[in-house]
Amino acid sequence: MPTVSAAAMALVPAPQPAAQPATALPVLRPLLPRAESYIEELRAIDERRWYSNHGPAVRRFEALLAAHFRLPPEGVASFSNGTIALTVALQALGAQPRQRCLMPSWTFVASASAVVGAGLVPHFVDVDPNTWALDPEALAKRHDLAGVGAVMAVSPFGAPLDRARWETFTAKTGIPVLIDAAAGFDAVASIGRAAPGPTPMMVSLHATKVFGVGEGAILLSSDRPLVELARQYGNFGFCSVAEAIVPGTNAKMSEYAAAVGLATLREWPARRRQLLTAATTYRIALSRVPGVSLAPEFGNGWVGSTCCVTLPGDGLIAGERLAERGIETRRWWRRGCHHQPAFAHYTRDKLPVTLDLARRCLGLPFYPDMTTEDIERVAAALAACADTD
Amino acid sequence: MPTVSAAAMALVPAPQPAAQPATALPVLRPLLPRAESYIEELRAIDERRWYSNHGPAVRRFEALLAAHFRLPPEGVASFSNGTIALTVALQALGAQPRQRCLMPSWTFVASASAVVGAGLVPHFVDVDPNTWALDPEALAKRHDLAGVGAVMAVSPFGAPLDRARWETFTAKTGIPVLIDAAAGFDAVASIGRAAPGPTPMMVSLHATKVFGVGEGAILLSSDRPLVELARQYGNFGFCSVAEAIVPGTNAKMSEYAAAVGLATLREWPARRRQLLTAATTYRIALSRVPGVSLAPEFGNGWVGSTCCVTLPGDGLIAGERLAERGIETRRWWRRGCHHQPAFAHYTRDKLPVTLDLARRCLGLPFYPDMTTEDIERVAAALAACADTD
Repeated sequence: MPTVSAAAMALVPAPQPAAQPATALPVLRPLLPRAESYIEELRAIDERRWYSNHGPAVRRFEALLAAHFRLPPEGVASFSNGTIALTVALQALGAQPRQRCLMPSWTFVASASAVVGAGLVPHFVDVDPNTWALDPEALAKRHDLAGVGAVMAVSPFGAPLDRARWETFTAKTGIPVLIDAAAGFDAVASIGRAAPGPTPMMVSLHATKVFGVGEGAILLSSDRPLVELARQYGNFGFCSVAEAIVPGTNAKMSEYAAAVGLATLREWPARRRQLLTAATTYRIALSRVPGVSLAPEFGNGWVGSTCCVTLPGDGLIAGERLAERGIETRRWWRRGCHHQPAFAHYTRDKLPVTLDLARRCLGLPFYPDMTTEDIERVAAALAACADTD
Repeated sequence: MPTVSAAAMALVPAPQPAAQPATALPVLRPLLPRAESYIEELRAIDERRWYSNHGPAVRRFEALLAAHFRLPPEGVASFSNGTIALTVALQALGAQPRQRCLMPSWTFVASASAVVGAGLVPHFVDVDPNTWALDPEALAKRHDLAGVGAVMAVSPFGAPLDRARWETFTAKTGIPVLIDAAAGFDAVASIGRAAPGPTPMMVSLHATKVFGVGEGAILLSSDRPLVELARQYGNFGFCSVAEAIVPGTNAKMSEYAAAVGLATLREWPARRRQLLTAATTYRIALSRVPGVSLAPEFGNGWVGSTCCVTLPGDGLIAGERLAERGIETRRWWRRGCHHQPAFAHYTRDKLPVTLDLARRCLGLPFYPDMTTEDIERVAAALAACADTD
């Protein structure tokens, strides 16, 4: 199977009719730079014989990304993956083990894994139906903020979050916020209100994201001591004076991953154009399908790596109908983290919006080299599903 | 600086005389396969567009390593690094958060980080002066084994551990054991009593180890359900039925790292010969230096990635003397984990052997392409140090 994702294990096998009417459309087709575009960097690594531990390729990659996000030179730290980056960021923010972390259930399971990995106790909060994200003003008014060590705000499918609202939340409550913008590489760079600032943001560089290096992630913040502390937590707690001050872990990105990343960055403008074209085509095509709505702000000046819609009815049933037409779909965040056995025992608010999204949300095929015909085919299949409902 | 290691941050800068008498000898010079030896695998990855999430390269790498270690086909799981592999292995063994983990202080700080990462509480135990490792029989006789969730036995600098003794320990006490054989790639494959079996072993594939992929690690066990469970903990707790059963993390190795690993495996017989030659040359050269002893069983049918010796006096002083001669050294495990601020508050036994080793142990230059002249130079410098003491 050539298309795999972080959630691939969660795929319910799609029933395939005996006679397939057309080429199957996968839900995701990751596309990373070809070997030829970074072979010279690999040769340079061979010459240096420096393969990990914050080597020259990693440092150059971080510096170029800092410029890309208009951050100071040390405002970007790279990590081995997004889950571990979230964990070390929570530690760097000073959240203490056994404190609570307010977070949405409407996110990929990795967000909750990272919170538990930092020793924190998740408490699931519902999302705003318009943004699919936590509402900072509503959160600030809660009466149970004592003992909350951190808030994890999650950018839904890479949509821009308004960072200033979260900084107001922290100013009012004293509670640090971490933004899980796993799929937000482009929104964070392209949408002013979502741009990096003091509140740290994690962006995943997993193969399935728009900007991939294989396995990897970055933490972004204008607060350089915070970024440096997160880096230390990810390097066994070592600081420059040679002692393990904090019980860190290994969260280092190898030079090889950075070599891929440097090529991804060179190719990014072209890749972004491709994705924006696909997103715009979807916006036009789906505007003709009654009852189907795109995820908040999808393709509105930024690109993500998925195309999620809400349907009038059950996403599972629509997914089965599309599968019959050779169109793969995915319920990316399934029924929310609080439904996963690993997290079902944690406390939560009532979650009506999450449950409604979980029922009606469906991820459609989306990848850079999707053609207009592919997208029209998906839209037509969705329209046909609605007709037969 | 072309030579870096997991402990590089812990390096005390070596004083350099104004006039350097000869080319500086670094303490480590990692050597991984050149790009040309795995470019075809990278091109295959490009064709597949499958870059992580237990892809074909990772699976082939794991299968070939299973054969290398004479394990059943699913007896090897790959991970993003050794620290995270130790953590998920402890979780898979059923060790519960807040239980104690008996472990040596005489190890790299990553061992203790992994224990804390699994939610366990380290208790530091002294090592046997002959093996530099925990003594399973002595451990079995302790009266404080209640509440011990796991034992982490550490192979010192890759030396073979007698696995059967640890299985006897588990049979007697019911306490699971994890072997941290971070530097043990070759001992585990080459020395019969250290060969993998039911007790899981972690072998690091970090760039500084004899068998490197950049960042990476493997878990070895003949207990396939255990290996599969560790893999699930490293894949967000997902099992084959699509639910996050346990609060896992992301510990996945990318296809790129596996591509390097496949080349490393092809080149391994030649690399091993080089390292064995260097080790044998050291054994001969140092046999003429009074008072200097090699680490247990160094080069005795297996190779590691470091050359550690004990000296009659203080390793720190000898290190300074060697630095004056352009020879870099490293106190790899410094003064033991219990001396690191991050772990100083954990309970411990009296640790006289650890303290003595910490004082007298010194890592000498060691890498595959070290020449006989290089090694003779180190031996001569050590002899000169002894003369001036």
